[in-house]
Amino acid sequence: MEARSRRNNLFFASNEGLVVWFTGLSSSGKTTLSRAVYNLLMQAGHRAEILDGDVIRRKLCRELGFSKQDRDENIRRIGFVANVLKRHGVIVLVSAISPYREIRQEMRNRMGNFIEVYVNAPLSICEERDAKDLYRRARAGELKGFTGIDDPYEPPFSRKLPAAQIGNPLKRARKRWLKRFMLIPIKR
Amino acid sequence: MEARSRRNNLFFASNEGLVVWFTGLSSSGKTTLSRAVYNLLMQAGHRAEILDGDVIRRKLCRELGFSKQDRDENIRRIGFVANVLKRHGVIVLVSAISPYREIRQEMRNRMGNFIEVYVNAPLSICEERDAKDLYRRARAGELKGFTGIDDPYEPPFSRKLPAAQIGNPLKRARKRWLKRFMLIPIKR
Repeated sequence: MEARSRRNNLFFASNEGLVVWFTGLSSSGKTTLSRAVYNLLMQAGHRAEILDGDVIRRKLCRELGFSKQDRDENIRRIGFVANVLKRHGVIVLVSAISPYREIRQEMRNRMGNFIEVYVNAPLSICEERDAKDLYRRARAGELKGFTGIDDPYEPPFSRKLPAAQIGNPLKRARKRWLKRFMLIPIKR
Repeated sequence: MEARSRRNNLFFASNEGLVVWFTGLSSSGKTTLSRAVYNLLMQAGHRAEILDGDVIRRKLCRELGFSKQDRDENIRRIGFVANVLKRHGVIVLVSAISPYREIRQEMRNRMGNFIEVYVNAPLSICEERDAKDLYRRARAGELKGFTGIDDPYEPPFSRKLPAAQIGNPLKRARKRWLKRFMLIPIKR
């Protein structure tokens, strides 16, 4: 059974697992949102795992930089781990900037049960938050190839993607997303 | 519950999963043995996954070479993936030369439910098999830092490790190993 949207766009997970891929600018709220979803999934008795882009960079991609080639390789490694977890029935919440459309499409094609979530906070808000002090450094020229500043973010084309959220991710998220995830039936 | 040996050294898996780490020279039979164990586990209804060193090198470590530092990083990446799978109740069969004692110990310390299996085929037999034409190339000087030729393999100290097997891995393996794995109780 594949994950599919029915009626109210509810998400149905299967025994084969599911990958929910949060994409968006740095400080857009991907990690916050994925953690909130994770907590709700755990409360509901699901098996879930967060693959955070920052953690994966440390653990599996220490040598990779931020060229397009390196970013794509980084995404493929995240995808490899997500896929193997998915095969074992895990709901995998990936949180990674993943700025290029093409590689996100590659992930979708590879995985089957795949939901892309565009965390659509505008650059101005992300830069104001600047949770990791990265925008400031990018503006100061200390970081090169920073997404949104001197490297592109390619937003998804499709309107069928789960609706984006703007502003405070948790408040919006509760309304728009989390109730849907709560409705994923548990398969044991 | 932790994996522990009882009486006849039977292995008990738990809901938290288990990592079985096959270490040994190239062509010693690690992959053959891990596949045989995998098939039996699947027949018995377990959730299992093989992490093969060659595959992981392609997927997660393309840039790594065969210096001690790179080999250790390679093992840590395999360990990262094994650990996350184990947390979801999977029996993970790792097949990797992993020639250095220290990093194998690091894996054991990190993982808890961990069984190290030394696939103890002597160099002469491995070199005769030479399944991937690597020993020939190493002897010809085409490959540098090849385990067993010009890079060390450090066998495990402990006699408590599951008994090593020599010669035809499948024949021996059936007698010595596979029956034990068959006895892992299934937890659903």
